[in-house]
Amino acid sequence: MTNFDVVVVGAGLAGLTAARAVRAAGRSVIVLEARGRVAGRTLGHRLSDGTPVELGGQWIGRTQTEVLKLVDELGLETFPTYDDGAAVTLYNGTLTRYADETFGLSAEGAATVGRLRQELEGLADTVSLSSPWTSPAAAELDRQSVGEWLHTRTSDTEALAFWGAIIPALFSAEPAELSLLHFLFYIKSGGTLGNLVSTTGGAQELRVVGGPHLMSERLADQLGDAVRLNAPVRKVSQDHDGVRVDFEGGQVTAQRVIVAIPPTLAGRLVYQPALPASRDGLTQQMPMGSVIKVQVAYPTPFWRRAGLSGFGFSLDEGLSVTMDNSPPDGSRGVLVGFFEGAHARSAALLPLEERRVSAVATLVRMFGPEAQNPVEYAEQNWMEEEYTRGCYGGRLGAGVWTQHGAALTEPVGRIHWAGAETSDVWNGYMDGAIRSGRRAAAEVLGHQEA
Amino acid sequence: MTNFDVVVVGAGLAGLTAARAVRAAGRSVIVLEARGRVAGRTLGHRLSDGTPVELGGQWIGRTQTEVLKLVDELGLETFPTYDDGAAVTLYNGTLTRYADETFGLSAEGAATVGRLRQELEGLADTVSLSSPWTSPAAAELDRQSVGEWLHTRTSDTEALAFWGAIIPALFSAEPAELSLLHFLFYIKSGGTLGNLVSTTGGAQELRVVGGPHLMSERLADQLGDAVRLNAPVRKVSQDHDGVRVDFEGGQVTAQRVIVAIPPTLAGRLVYQPALPASRDGLTQQMPMGSVIKVQVAYPTPFWRRAGLSGFGFSLDEGLSVTMDNSPPDGSRGVLVGFFEGAHARSAALLPLEERRVSAVATLVRMFGPEAQNPVEYAEQNWMEEEYTRGCYGGRLGAGVWTQHGAALTEPVGRIHWAGAETSDVWNGYMDGAIRSGRRAAAEVLGHQEA
Repeated sequence: MTNFDVVVVGAGLAGLTAARAVRAAGRSVIVLEARGRVAGRTLGHRLSDGTPVELGGQWIGRTQTEVLKLVDELGLETFPTYDDGAAVTLYNGTLTRYADETFGLSAEGAATVGRLRQELEGLADTVSLSSPWTSPAAAELDRQSVGEWLHTRTSDTEALAFWGAIIPALFSAEPAELSLLHFLFYIKSGGTLGNLVSTTGGAQELRVVGGPHLMSERLADQLGDAVRLNAPVRKVSQDHDGVRVDFEGGQVTAQRVIVAIPPTLAGRLVYQPALPASRDGLTQQMPMGSVIKVQVAYPTPFWRRAGLSGFGFSLDEGLSVTMDNSPPDGSRGVLVGFFEGAHARSAALLPLEERRVSAVATLVRMFGPEAQNPVEYAEQNWMEEEYTRGCYGGRLGAGVWTQHGAALTEPVGRIHWAGAETSDVWNGYMDGAIRSGRRAAAEVLGHQEA
Repeated sequence: MTNFDVVVVGAGLAGLTAARAVRAAGRSVIVLEARGRVAGRTLGHRLSDGTPVELGGQWIGRTQTEVLKLVDELGLETFPTYDDGAAVTLYNGTLTRYADETFGLSAEGAATVGRLRQELEGLADTVSLSSPWTSPAAAELDRQSVGEWLHTRTSDTEALAFWGAIIPALFSAEPAELSLLHFLFYIKSGGTLGNLVSTTGGAQELRVVGGPHLMSERLADQLGDAVRLNAPVRKVSQDHDGVRVDFEGGQVTAQRVIVAIPPTLAGRLVYQPALPASRDGLTQQMPMGSVIKVQVAYPTPFWRRAGLSGFGFSLDEGLSVTMDNSPPDGSRGVLVGFFEGAHARSAALLPLEERRVSAVATLVRMFGPEAQNPVEYAEQNWMEEEYTRGCYGGRLGAGVWTQHGAALTEPVGRIHWAGAETSDVWNGYMDGAIRSGRRAAAEVLGHQEA
């Protein structure tokens, strides 16, 4: 069979959710996936003793209602991210241990950060989630990069270093690389900045037993042979009668297509007829972030004995953020860490062994000499993944939302767009991906012929 | 024959120059061009009476030594752009006529513009042309958009409106859409801001008799059947033995490949193995500008009788810049105009007839009622061109040069990069395209096996 009601490009959470909704409405569907696996930016991995660790997206917050519902529907379970005890912050080589909301900053630094945070939350309130470019101060907010905005607000070195690490922790990009309007949109999309950066009470509160890639795997199981792997799509053609999608190894026809891959990758497909300039102009400039995720395993979560949560934050070179990523029973200690933004780009140039040494050195500075000898190290460089080309997601730099934002979700004839980047709620997160898949499916199902 | 020493992707000035140099060194070469014509962003057109007008790049400045040499070598001739008489500026619906360097601004506006111009020239002096990201103040200059920088420097509405029109005139992009570092690099690349914006004494001083696309056509004639049209390249594969280039309709092999298309389009090809993240990260965010070029023809260049040069500058909606584009003998009057940046994006949404009406309305405001009834109107929307996707060229927004700039020209194995965007001198111009082609050819010829 090569003719369907709907063809979906990409078997991540967005595409699979869309496909499920299409099938639930009684329409035929096929999902074309470039890789030999489903799950997109989530990726399961097992340490040699069988402990599952997440090499891609992993956390869920309690206000992420759609992903929580899906976890439940699919018979999966969540468990709380380990978050007991004190956190640590590295700054200029000095370690600070703290158990409050200060991120270990000096009183002055914390006050400045708090003031800017309040200002950001206030500005975020003014942004339209459905169409950020129509926000009252859109032009002014969009012409500033976050980096420049911060420098106009403070010259406090410590506060600037804080934001210089927390922005990459959220976007895998440097403050200069994103528009202030984009940051504000993203804050509002996730509720508050507190939501975004917090473990307990925030977006990092829960993990999925076995890993969140299991959601995609179970969705794919339900879809059966409607999911075709190793089928990189190259061309999407449409005319009055329908669409044709060419992939390496074949072609399918359908009434509608849902393209559920990151905007920058969507921009690389060949379209016939060519996409309108408004859409093409957007995908020319919605780059993915730069991140290398590492998992470092120890015989035990030794930091817990020292009263540490495993949350480490570094304003210095190397890893920016670490968290306790041990299995629920604590039978093994795992620290997860991230090289982000500029740090990821420079770390990527190192041989694996040197990168491992760099990561472990940061863990030793944070958690002491016991961190020196991990039993295992695993990593995932998302920039090198041909079919993702960066994580956590696509962002917009200065000036882009106001000039090109309207094209992000607007269908082009029979082509509909999904993916975490296209959601107005929890944009960039698994929850947003699911919402986007559902929204795209609703668009498609709203058309009679499909 | 399907095996060559070098394959060139793109038959614009860069690619053809490279191919010529490769052949001159005694190596075999093939040029694969997606379109049914050569010449890339230059495009010839004839009015119904035979008068040639340029629908793409058209002007040459006296310091653009490489393009002048090529014109000469190819037996072509230049003639001066008509530039006698007064210029006009439209601002808030009011027309000002002037014959000095003030752009018709008020004394206060002109003083502010002059002050900022001086500051920009001074900053441009500090920028490294070969590696802008290593400039002393690179981080600070790159984290600011030009739009934000202007707003930190002045609140003079008129001066801001001036820059809000002159920046799109140079980049077909709004001030918020480009990095201050990029603007400074571009100024230095062309010599001075005065060079960039001036007709006589600047980058718009000369035209090519018949049109500059004739350069590409003559180069292609010399290359004969080494230029293959209607051959859109889809995939570039390389291994230890050589490269293979797949295009619609066939494939060729070679020792080296020169990709001479805009970076954003280069990023859309499939590469095997996939390109390194550093290069891919750059092409994810080097968008083309937005421009619609119009040619409006009259029985005579009637504005000349009124002592006007035909140079019109508008800070209002619609066309931003007009110039006298009549043939050398003045046998017919032609005004060329540009919808640029945001104006181009909104003009593109209009039906052709409404866009024509808008263009003519601006010409009437600038040059009087005689402009009301053109005998002919021609236009080119470069954004809609699948194999260009915008003009005048690729630019970098805030934060990109410092994070990704090094990948702009660095070869990837057997793949070399050419195109106007890759030149350090006259970046973005025909002169820069020629330089880039020569540079890429030298890289390729420097490798023994090619």
